[in-house]
Amino acid sequence: MEYIISSNKIKKGGNAIILDPDTLSGIKKIAARVSFDFKAVFSAKPRLLEGAVSNVKSPIYVGMLNDKLIQDLSIDTSDIQNKREVYKIIVKNDALIIAGSDKRGTIYGLFKLSEMLGVSPFIDWLDVKPVPQKEFRLPGSYSYVSKEPSVRFRGFFINDEWPAFGNFCNKRFGGFNAKVYEHVFELLLRLKGNYMWPAMWSAIFPNDGPGLENAILADELGVVMGMSHHEPCLRQGEEYKYLRGKGSIYGDAWNFLTNEKGITRFWEDGLKRSGRFENVITGGMRGEADTAIMGKEATLKDNIDLLRKVLKTQNRLIKENVNENLDEVPRMLALYKEVEPYFYGDDKTKGLMDDPELEGVTLMLCDDNFGNLRTVPSAHMRSHKGGYGMYYHFDYHGLPISFEWFNTSHLSKVWEQMTTAYDFGIRDLWIVNVGDIFSNEYPLSFFLDLAYDFDYWGSSNFKAAREYTDSFVKRNFEGRMTQSDIKKCSELLEGYTRITSARRTEAMNDRVYAPFSYNETFDKLKQCEKLMDSAKKLLDKLSGNTRFAFYELVWLPLSANLNVQRMWLLTTLNHGFAKEGSTYAIALGKKVNECIDYDREIVKELHTIEDGKWYGMGLSEHIGFNAWCEEGCQYPVIHTFEPANKERLIVSVKGSNYYSEGMFWTGHVPVMDSFLNPEVDEAELLLSTAGSVAAKYNIENPNSFISVSEESGIVRPYTLKTLKIKIDRSQYRKAKKVPEICVHSADGNIVVKIPVNTISDLGVEKKKRGIFYWTGKTVDMNEKVIDVPLHQRTWPGKTECMDYISIDAVNFTSKTDSSKGAFRVIEDYSRGMDAVKAYPQNVIFSRSKKDAPMLTYTVRVPEEGDYEVLLYTNPSNPYSRDNEIFFGISVNDGGMRKINMIHPYFSVGDGNPYWSMGVLENTRKVSVNLKLNEGINDINIYALDPNFVLQKIVISAWGNPPAESYLGPKETFRY
Amino acid sequence: MEYIISSNKIKKGGNAIILDPDTLSGIKKIAARVSFDFKAVFSAKPRLLEGAVSNVKSPIYVGMLNDKLIQDLSIDTSDIQNKREVYKIIVKNDALIIAGSDKRGTIYGLFKLSEMLGVSPFIDWLDVKPVPQKEFRLPGSYSYVSKEPSVRFRGFFINDEWPAFGNFCNKRFGGFNAKVYEHVFELLLRLKGNYMWPAMWSAIFPNDGPGLENAILADELGVVMGMSHHEPCLRQGEEYKYLRGKGSIYGDAWNFLTNEKGITRFWEDGLKRSGRFENVITGGMRGEADTAIMGKEATLKDNIDLLRKVLKTQNRLIKENVNENLDEVPRMLALYKEVEPYFYGDDKTKGLMDDPELEGVTLMLCDDNFGNLRTVPSAHMRSHKGGYGMYYHFDYHGLPISFEWFNTSHLSKVWEQMTTAYDFGIRDLWIVNVGDIFSNEYPLSFFLDLAYDFDYWGSSNFKAAREYTDSFVKRNFEGRMTQSDIKKCSELLEGYTRITSARRTEAMNDRVYAPFSYNETFDKLKQCEKLMDSAKKLLDKLSGNTRFAFYELVWLPLSANLNVQRMWLLTTLNHGFAKEGSTYAIALGKKVNECIDYDREIVKELHTIEDGKWYGMGLSEHIGFNAWCEEGCQYPVIHTFEPANKERLIVSVKGSNYYSEGMFWTGHVPVMDSFLNPEVDEAELLLSTAGSVAAKYNIENPNSFISVSEESGIVRPYTLKTLKIKIDRSQYRKAKKVPEICVHSADGNIVVKIPVNTISDLGVEKKKRGIFYWTGKTVDMNEKVIDVPLHQRTWPGKTECMDYISIDAVNFTSKTDSSKGAFRVIEDYSRGMDAVKAYPQNVIFSRSKKDAPMLTYTVRVPEEGDYEVLLYTNPSNPYSRDNEIFFGISVNDGGMRKINMIHPYFSVGDGNPYWSMGVLENTRKVSVNLKLNEGINDINIYALDPNFVLQKIVISAWGNPPAESYLGPKETFRY
Repeated sequence: MEYIISSNKIKKGGNAIILDPDTLSGIKKIAARVSFDFKAVFSAKPRLLEGAVSNVKSPIYVGMLNDKLIQDLSIDTSDIQNKREVYKIIVKNDALIIAGSDKRGTIYGLFKLSEMLGVSPFIDWLDVKPVPQKEFRLPGSYSYVSKEPSVRFRGFFINDEWPAFGNFCNKRFGGFNAKVYEHVFELLLRLKGNYMWPAMWSAIFPNDGPGLENAILADELGVVMGMSHHEPCLRQGEEYKYLRGKGSIYGDAWNFLTNEKGITRFWEDGLKRSGRFENVITGGMRGEADTAIMGKEATLKDNIDLLRKVLKTQNRLIKENVNENLDEVPRMLALYKEVEPYFYGDDKTKGLMDDPELEGVTLMLCDDNFGNLRTVPSAHMRSHKGGYGMYYHFDYHGLPISFEWFNTSHLSKVWEQMTTAYDFGIRDLWIVNVGDIFSNEYPLSFFLDLAYDFDYWGSSNFKAAREYTDSFVKRNFEGRMTQSDIKKCSELLEGYTRITSARRTEAMNDRVYAPFSYNETFDKLKQCEKLMDSAKKLLDKLSGNTRFAFYELVWLPLSANLNVQRMWLLTTLNHGFAKEGSTYAIALGKKVNECIDYDREIVKELHTIEDGKWYGMGLSEHIGFNAWCEEGCQYPVIHTFEPANKERLIVSVKGSNYYSEGMFWTGHVPVMDSFLNPEVDEAELLLSTAGSVAAKYNIENPNSFISVSEESGIVRPYTLKTLKIKIDRSQYRKAKKVPEICVHSADGNIVVKIPVNTISDLGVEKKKRGIFYWTGKTVDMNEKVIDVPLHQRTWPGKTECMDYISIDAVNFTSKTDSSKGAFRVIEDYSRGMDAVKAYPQNVIFSRSKKDAPMLTYTVRVPEEGDYEVLLYTNPSNPYSRDNEIFFGISVNDGGMRKINMIHPYFSVGDGNPYWSMGVLENTRKVSVNLKLNEGINDINIYALDPNFVLQKIVISAWGNPPAESYLGPKETFRY
Repeated sequence: MEYIISSNKIKKGGNAIILDPDTLSGIKKIAARVSFDFKAVFSAKPRLLEGAVSNVKSPIYVGMLNDKLIQDLSIDTSDIQNKREVYKIIVKNDALIIAGSDKRGTIYGLFKLSEMLGVSPFIDWLDVKPVPQKEFRLPGSYSYVSKEPSVRFRGFFINDEWPAFGNFCNKRFGGFNAKVYEHVFELLLRLKGNYMWPAMWSAIFPNDGPGLENAILADELGVVMGMSHHEPCLRQGEEYKYLRGKGSIYGDAWNFLTNEKGITRFWEDGLKRSGRFENVITGGMRGEADTAIMGKEATLKDNIDLLRKVLKTQNRLIKENVNENLDEVPRMLALYKEVEPYFYGDDKTKGLMDDPELEGVTLMLCDDNFGNLRTVPSAHMRSHKGGYGMYYHFDYHGLPISFEWFNTSHLSKVWEQMTTAYDFGIRDLWIVNVGDIFSNEYPLSFFLDLAYDFDYWGSSNFKAAREYTDSFVKRNFEGRMTQSDIKKCSELLEGYTRITSARRTEAMNDRVYAPFSYNETFDKLKQCEKLMDSAKKLLDKLSGNTRFAFYELVWLPLSANLNVQRMWLLTTLNHGFAKEGSTYAIALGKKVNECIDYDREIVKELHTIEDGKWYGMGLSEHIGFNAWCEEGCQYPVIHTFEPANKERLIVSVKGSNYYSEGMFWTGHVPVMDSFLNPEVDEAELLLSTAGSVAAKYNIENPNSFISVSEESGIVRPYTLKTLKIKIDRSQYRKAKKVPEICVHSADGNIVVKIPVNTISDLGVEKKKRGIFYWTGKTVDMNEKVIDVPLHQRTWPGKTECMDYISIDAVNFTSKTDSSKGAFRVIEDYSRGMDAVKAYPQNVIFSRSKKDAPMLTYTVRVPEEGDYEVLLYTNPSNPYSRDNEIFFGISVNDGGMRKINMIHPYFSVGDGNPYWSMGVLENTRKVSVNLKLNEGINDINIYALDPNFVLQKIVISAWGNPPAESYLGPKETFRY
């Protein structure tokens, strides 16, 4: 018999939620929350009843499997017995039964029902309302058993909470108290997490409830609390500040050497106070406020001995105050910053690895704060009892640049890195720093679902990032938008994070993208503007709660981020055009100011929108970092100048740094090199003025096969005029001289050389789209077609154009798998590009050719010689303690060279320039010198070590690299 | 009997100027001009009479010694007979007689009389009126005989005449015609010149008169005409443009190889037309428009052979058409640009030196276009019959940066270079490029007086530049201003040219001076503003013609130049403060715009002032050269930004690049190093805001011996607050830690370390003002006096301050002359500094210690080791064809090392970076590595070759140079 929940039934007293009177209070509270979910869906709230109630139509029984209520229902619970956090949902007769293997299993079951009714996990946190329904049906045979979560502890860390989350809490809730945490916990549980670290800068979780209310509420709802990686024994760092002092029982020094007694007492009292709740207890000790504990003069051994003594003390205290059986107490030690070497030791000093004090302690590893794993457990380490955890970041306050404003994380990289962690055995604890939570819901939700159901979302699902985005959008907007708008939402989420994955918004400045080379700034600007337009159109179309949900989940993080990105891109162009003396710079400067205005509006709007629901959430510094912190933060420096009072025309070739006013004697002749690629038939000239008066021009074009969109006209000051130059290749006949056109202006004659390659010029034989051709050409600037008095064109002499090959790594010519593994494509990996990586990703493929998966790139180069092969890879950190990630490379039948992509001076951490550059640019460029033959060459690339993720390859003559740019040259001609 | 000229006499017909009826028309014309000078002085114009007139009271007889009129007066003329351009002025009875040895002698005599009456040589050209007088007396015994001019041909070249001089001529006179040249010739003659090259870009002197009127007028007035260095046979370059063509008798190619007949005919017709006038005929041949004649493929021999053939042809044509006796025809060949190697040849190819075709031809050498002699004749060459000329520049259109606007030349350098030329035997022809003439009157007048009376103004007169300036001012303003204002005028002229000698106005940009190091930008700005204020006060005080003369001679070139200099200095500061994030940058940006407005006003004012007398004279491009020509010229790029909306204070140490907001964690601690010099007792802190709101501060100062001018206060946005920090050394007691003060602001605590040296810290023994002490100190940034939460001050670690010695070269400790010569001081040489140079300046002192004049600089350094000794010298060019200027250096009793200050890749000319840098910076930095002992060392510097002019010496530890700056660090402590 079909099971039905309906408005009518509920209104008549049916579909009541029935609990065991003796069940846990947390389950009762969540059941009450879910009854409100019902109300949101069915416009009626079901009754909440307790005990053996009869006469309820289509009741919903909820409880843990050992609740009497559930036992009395005589369903088969063998499939959830002795399992962690699982539930069973089954229809029996006219009843729906939700049985949990334990407290959290039951709670997840309750929220699963909500989810089935179309309720978003953000119903409370973001106020995302579900689509109203009249009824909901399940077949009489319905039975569902959830999986055991993949990762044991899964949660997030509220951090760097000032100024945003802090102001939000104070204004909305009067502090970091249980009124806030009620919402935070609900969010965590609905997202299937079970673990959290509370805010910790000037907040004291166990005191702020007020009193213990925060901790009691967490325990009730089944939220396992931790403290951050540097707050041992359930004590928050801030607490010591308040409790220390002369005469304090805790002494007056955060120093285990000089104040062992006081510190021990401090920890003991913490364990006594909070030890009865469900916790993962942090062990170890660091200095105050995230710093090293001993001074610089201390030896490694001094530090290790001290830390061992600390751990021993802490274990004793836990036994005495929490549980005699340490194995039953989840404990964690973070291998973070300086603690890492204490764990590993060195040749002379044994570290804490395998130390008995660490038995059963989960060792928490971490990323490099910028989303790249710092290290993974070696094969030997993986057997450690207690397992491993991972501390990951969607928010960071520190070097080289903080990112704490709105989400900038892109799922694909998160997927690649966190699946690597899992595959390397990091499965006991995953925690992610989400800053102020707000705006990070999208990656957070992915992170927790990946941790909950790795079978589905993990390493085997190469579409996970995209699929997750789609499902995320559906869970929030299905039924409230058209299918095409839902698709658009996915594109918008992916789109803005793709741009922030090329450069985080906070790390943007005017010197990131090259103003003109390869058109990267104009292109990026166009992408930003397209996404903002599209999002704005959708926003304007929506209304009510759907509009607000879209605002929170898509519009705000998108437009806030892209507005700032756009502001910097405009600044880059402002500087570029100002340098040329172009008045267009001045118009760009004004646009920059519009972006600043919008940025300020956002912050204000968040103070007031929906009655100030998100008060303060825009306050984090996010523009113009000169250091990692706020000091020196500055809005873009705009370049402006007084234009000349004359008719002066500037012509530049879009995508290049060439520009000229074509005046007598200067001899600056721009080259438009686009048609060297036989597949390109259109290019652009940019015209602007150097003066405050309009500039006339007319174009002399003696080439029948070249057309110009507007052969004569006027360029107004403060504007940019784009002329489309098209080639009709069917009309093109090869001549001795390089084709030229000339833009005549009042005061100059700008000759533009337009070299052309045909397919036959390149010696292309048959179409197979596998070979990358060198399209470069040397242009003799002295040679004239058009006779204008430039007098001495020789100054640039001969100019080489397009003298490089650029390859997107996924466009390999062929692929050779080994018995141990194979390269796979990760779509949309980062920086707007796909990537290739060898799988399985936890395998060292050996350092010989035989076992190494291989990719082959076939290229045709003009002459034998030394070439630079520049590989753009993920800035992955060494997977082991050795400073190494090797890959292999060979040419044709030559032997494989093993290349370590890690610089000898690389190390993860504050101030290291190789690491800093990598995380800011989100790429690492590895240069290899290869000798190539004239003509066709196979360049083979081999995966040897884990963590080698390749995105782009640029080949140029050694010593003659292509023009500088951020993204590198675009892919060149392949046939 | 006293001879008297008076108003009354003139009005009654006395003081008539009486000429021989048969004297030259030019003398009559000049006598008429002088009669107007009388009118200006005495308010009455004397009669001009001819022949034996009686009944004139106190007549003035004027004529050449062979005029019958003069002969009849029976005065002794033996002292002027057979002399060049001399005159005698003698009182005889009641008559004044001016007798000239020749035409120009007579004319100079006439103008001498004017000068004696207080008439400025600029009475016509600049409309400088004399002081009215009632009478003028000469003793009855008065007799004066002028010297023969030192240099035979002395003149100037009107060049680069577009847009200024060209527009001026067209608007005021309707072309480059005799109406203009009448004024120009008068100017030349009054300045005691006799030679000129006319304007030549789009002007044709022998056609524009109209017709031959220009040439006829020149000849009449005794002006010897030349054409520029590349216009042979009295033909102007522009002429060929008009006369060439198919079917032209002159052919259609400026090519002696392919069009020998046509070119020969062209020259022949030129000589026929203009050969009857007094000329210096240019020989040789260059390409059109100042370029090389043959293509790049031609060998040296090809070129030499061609040039020889050209010279032979030209000599033949001159004989046939001008004078059979070539010795009587002044001829000139310019050894300019590519012609130089043709003259010298090389190892394999004999050049044209000593070629019979060059016998009697004056060889014209030149400067490097920027005021530094390019080469001087070797001992062998000095015997050349025909002698040498020098082509010098006060104006240049070409690489690296053109300077064509208002005067930027400083007399002292002109004096040093041109006396060198004279001492090396260059005495036959001096010509200077004066661009549009206007505003270059000051250096031009000096140049011509130096050429006229080398005995007085030349090498022996080390005060010549200053003395000349004083006399120049007096000649124009005596009797019209107070003596103190006259002194001020001298200071103003010297002052503005001192600033332009540090960097020519046209070569200024925002990257010349360091924004903060050594305070050089603030200092230079202050100098500019002080001079402008002082000039403005004087301008406002003056009226009528005095005001206008002051405007022309002082105010306009001064304020125009300094306004632009100031504009760039403000831009430099704008960029510097913008980089710090200081809102003061925005106020500076506005000031830059005010400068631009003023600049535009000047140009407009010149169009209209005095009924447009100087129409067009401000039109030359002078701002923001990106190339040497107008292309890309741009007003300053101003940096602006939107200020933060917060209270944020920035503190910086004036004179250093230190700045900080003192926020938690950043650890930026500025150091104020001024008090390391025991003679400095005052320094400054600069406070500004990063936000648009005022910032409060208060200063914590635990040091009894340090006072702060304003210990707490408010800094308004967009302003700069300067706090004076003073040390009371009598209160100072040495402590273990470096003194600190702390500026507390709303958001930060800026700790400033203030290290102090006492005389005893430096180990100074007795006062003798001879030893330069190393005042440097290492400051441990980790050390704390004031406890503020900067958390980690260690970031800069230890900082070294003042770790260098800077010496003004004139402050040598001792001086050792040799038998061959001695160092002498040239005051105010260039860049605002004095210099030392060995004299006689045409001597090669040998390359051993014995004969070399020596200077000793005694320095005390902290430790034994390698030091860099950086010498700032004039960017002199090698005096010979070898790429060499050697000087010597030794330490203590060590051997002398010979150092060639010329870089091996140096060559004078377009595009050479070593030369270009030198002329733009007007200095050359020569780095020498010296090993010094700990403690006291004598550094000895020897003059070996000519042209070694030393201004500054900076000593630092090798590999650790002082902060970059334009002028270098200021002189450090000497005792």
